[in-house]
Amino acid sequence: MNRGIFITFEGIEGSGKTTQGRLLAQTLKNEGFKVFYTYEPGDTLAGRYIREILLNSEIKITPLCELLLYFADRAQHIEEKIKPHLEAGFIVICDRFTDSTIVYQGYVRGISIDLIEELNKKLFSQFIPDLTVLLDCSASIGLGRNKKANKKDRFEMETLSFHEKVREGYLELAKINKERFFVLDATESINVIAEKIYKKVKSLII
Amino acid sequence: MNRGIFITFEGIEGSGKTTQGRLLAQTLKNEGFKVFYTYEPGDTLAGRYIREILLNSEIKITPLCELLLYFADRAQHIEEKIKPHLEAGFIVICDRFTDSTIVYQGYVRGISIDLIEELNKKLFSQFIPDLTVLLDCSASIGLGRNKKANKKDRFEMETLSFHEKVREGYLELAKINKERFFVLDATESINVIAEKIYKKVKSLII
Repeated sequence: MNRGIFITFEGIEGSGKTTQGRLLAQTLKNEGFKVFYTYEPGDTLAGRYIREILLNSEIKITPLCELLLYFADRAQHIEEKIKPHLEAGFIVICDRFTDSTIVYQGYVRGISIDLIEELNKKLFSQFIPDLTVLLDCSASIGLGRNKKANKKDRFEMETLSFHEKVREGYLELAKINKERFFVLDATESINVIAEKIYKKVKSLII
Repeated sequence: MNRGIFITFEGIEGSGKTTQGRLLAQTLKNEGFKVFYTYEPGDTLAGRYIREILLNSEIKITPLCELLLYFADRAQHIEEKIKPHLEAGFIVICDRFTDSTIVYQGYVRGISIDLIEELNKKLFSQFIPDLTVLLDCSASIGLGRNKKANKKDRFEMETLSFHEKVREGYLELAKINKERFFVLDATESINVIAEKIYKKVKSLII
């Protein structure tokens, strides 16, 4: 398939993935590339409604319901935004994607990872990132950064050990999927990290 | 498994399934049975938010997103309400369930029925109704009834031929699943239909 490049950013809360994803998008745009920046969950109208359920800690949801809501968001997101942009040759940069689901709903919430991967294969098998940037840092550093922002959703209310499990899940996934994961130390300076990601991405484009 | 009885009501809009489901619940309650009446989508707090997305015709959703939202609603509904009531020995009467998904999202919207059934098996295989009451009537009769109620959601805005396809889908499913489907002519009087359903259910209980 003649198509663009699909890059995802992953990491725990406060790892800096959003900052780095946006920086990369801006840099590539400045160089004249067609870039589409997006995120999960919630970057469609339906997705915004779904995100409200996912993040509002007052709405009780089971792990399986949570998983299926993420999948519903992803189905809409792929069809409405990711697929048409990839088909039009864009570099699509997405903040969180399937790896988030495997880590949060699988490794951490305890839904069978085999089940998640089977569902994923049946539903979205064509959409595997060309590159996944994992910004790795300890939960205490990540959460420390986010505290400053003073926001609390369902995931930000979780304990430190929850977020440590998320980190471990990501590192495990990175080991299994070495060919597409690019793991970076998220405690380095923003500019140093940005430069490393930029070089990696350029090596894919050329 | 020592458990209650799981009865679902299916049919096109305006077929009278809600009226009949409620009548049956009331009759059985009056006789002293433990009865739990419920419906899909939307009979949990999360479900009410999901239902809003499903029925609001201003929110664009793809067939796959729609399917996954129904599954998310069902996951929450089963865990929070259906499963505990069945385990406690209740007769659970549910207005719409998996058959609705196969008919609306499969037969009508065109998602692969094999895919829906595979997903259903992986997610909810334990929850097959003991009895499914199908109230059958033509789309023009069903929609004629509903017009009086003067409400218009995503499905009520669909054409007559959409609802005829729904009817055909149900009749097809009833043929395939003869052992649990009980098909009734929905144009008969409320009392006549109620009596037939009541007798059928009593034959299951005794």
